[in-house]
Amino acid sequence: MKTVNIGLLGLGNIGTGTYKALEMNRARIEAVTGLDLRITRILEVDVTRDRGIAVDPAKFTQDPSAIFGDPSISIVIELLGGVEPATSFMVDAMNAGKSVVTANKAALAENYEILTETAAKNGVSLRFEASVGGGIPLIAAITESLAANEFTELQGILNGTTNYILTKMATEGRDYADVLAEAQAKGFAEADPTADVEGHDVANKLSILLSLVFDVRVKPQDIPTTGITDITKGDIAEAASQGCVIKLVANAARTPDGLLYFIQPTWVNLDHPLASVNNEFNALFLKGNAVDDLTMIGKGAGPLPTASAVLGDVITIAKGV
Amino acid sequence: MKTVNIGLLGLGNIGTGTYKALEMNRARIEAVTGLDLRITRILEVDVTRDRGIAVDPAKFTQDPSAIFGDPSISIVIELLGGVEPATSFMVDAMNAGKSVVTANKAALAENYEILTETAAKNGVSLRFEASVGGGIPLIAAITESLAANEFTELQGILNGTTNYILTKMATEGRDYADVLAEAQAKGFAEADPTADVEGHDVANKLSILLSLVFDVRVKPQDIPTTGITDITKGDIAEAASQGCVIKLVANAARTPDGLLYFIQPTWVNLDHPLASVNNEFNALFLKGNAVDDLTMIGKGAGPLPTASAVLGDVITIAKGV
Repeated sequence: MKTVNIGLLGLGNIGTGTYKALEMNRARIEAVTGLDLRITRILEVDVTRDRGIAVDPAKFTQDPSAIFGDPSISIVIELLGGVEPATSFMVDAMNAGKSVVTANKAALAENYEILTETAAKNGVSLRFEASVGGGIPLIAAITESLAANEFTELQGILNGTTNYILTKMATEGRDYADVLAEAQAKGFAEADPTADVEGHDVANKLSILLSLVFDVRVKPQDIPTTGITDITKGDIAEAASQGCVIKLVANAARTPDGLLYFIQPTWVNLDHPLASVNNEFNALFLKGNAVDDLTMIGKGAGPLPTASAVLGDVITIAKGV
Repeated sequence: MKTVNIGLLGLGNIGTGTYKALEMNRARIEAVTGLDLRITRILEVDVTRDRGIAVDPAKFTQDPSAIFGDPSISIVIELLGGVEPATSFMVDAMNAGKSVVTANKAALAENYEILTETAAKNGVSLRFEASVGGGIPLIAAITESLAANEFTELQGILNGTTNYILTKMATEGRDYADVLAEAQAKGFAEADPTADVEGHDVANKLSILLSLVFDVRVKPQDIPTTGITDITKGDIAEAASQGCVIKLVANAARTPDGLLYFIQPTWVNLDHPLASVNNEFNALFLKGNAVDDLTMIGKGAGPLPTASAVLGDVITIAKGV
């Protein structure tokens, strides 16, 4: 049994889910991997909130250097979200010789070069499976299992909130504003839904995928993006009459005119593998010149699916520590 | 750039596809991974057949010890198929300190303990992504990305020949014997289709998955298995009238009565992610206690999709050499 100590930045929803999933599945992780994973320090201001988990109060700190300067910690999990201070904390952690696991799509999309170069310079790992597609292991697939492919095409449903809204509009024949209000009431959509419904969240994710699948860096703000706010139930009925559903699709493809990429509501034919991806599910369709068509479908968000991806990254790194 | 020399056992359809995919995508593999992968020796009797690839005749040998005894070779790819001599060759290669990549479901299902223990004893890697689901990166997903899950359920469409036959029967309203004959004429089914249509091929694959997903060893012959030979177009029409399609499904689930596993033609509801997996495509549906529902769909056979998986394993090992 190999003990690996971990520092956790942020004990919000995802951080709590990660802590919980590690405790819940500790026995299997130990049996299958031989790893005793321990979250020994947690950077978090709110030390009193009842999260439904038992955390030794001595683990909490409000000083990141207490984690980065701790020689017993080899992996830092960053779950603060947002570009800063998350980017600076990840850079500091890697400069201190720690490998980093993050779910932070905004920081990656904005600062991909800085983060990957800092990892390379320090000879540490930077893994971010949870940043795109939540629990779906698509980044490991693209960068490892499918690394012997040239990719020609990708299409993704990468935002659960918009997919939930479009699914409800289609199956219940309701208007956008009506379904959005319900989703907000149920907590499936934010009070300010702009980042989701205008496609900005998807743009962060497509920016990351363009780096990994097509080896190009495109900032999210440079990806032509149309959200779902103008979609009406009439549009959806018209698509259905032609055997299609409307999905918010992140597209990229090599064409004779070069690499095209854009995000927009798209008519998807019912026989396409993305057509049946409904509600909060996410999916990625890829075409490689060896593997051909590949589709992966799963939960794109939520504390436990995200924790699955975060802990998978931690295990992959810890095996090599 | 790191040079890694590889010995290849077998230059049949899959071996040729692997050689071809490596040459086709050499530039991207080098750019993305920094690896210069070289197949330097090939165990193969037939040295004269035109395979549509340029292979230096000096690479061929008919003596496996010329590969296992070559200190410049660190990885052996086994693509002979069949239980023996493939198993003995893999054991010999690992005892000689080589890591092994194989697509051989029959050898793995029959000799899983011997092979995994030989790898562990010698401190080498044994990887077999291509053995189940062809190009779909499901084994890496289960063993690495999703290692922080307890799994409760799996359902797989793991044989392309039977899925092709059932799809044609359903979409064209034809009889089993009629579609089988056409599939044989087109080369999609073997002259002796027993291993496919009776489910034996799927049993090998489910045996491997049971080891990885549920941590139990069950020999393929101990998995209750029913093939598709008794399915009629009437059965398919009856399922369709109830909103279902018939698929040959490999099932396993934890239940209050313990782990259940079996292979049989199954009515799949149209809203299940496996329902739209047609023709030669394979798919795996998994339920984990953190990731929740996950589905992966892709080409389960064929030289290039299989090569994608084989080379993905080679790259993963070579990064650590």
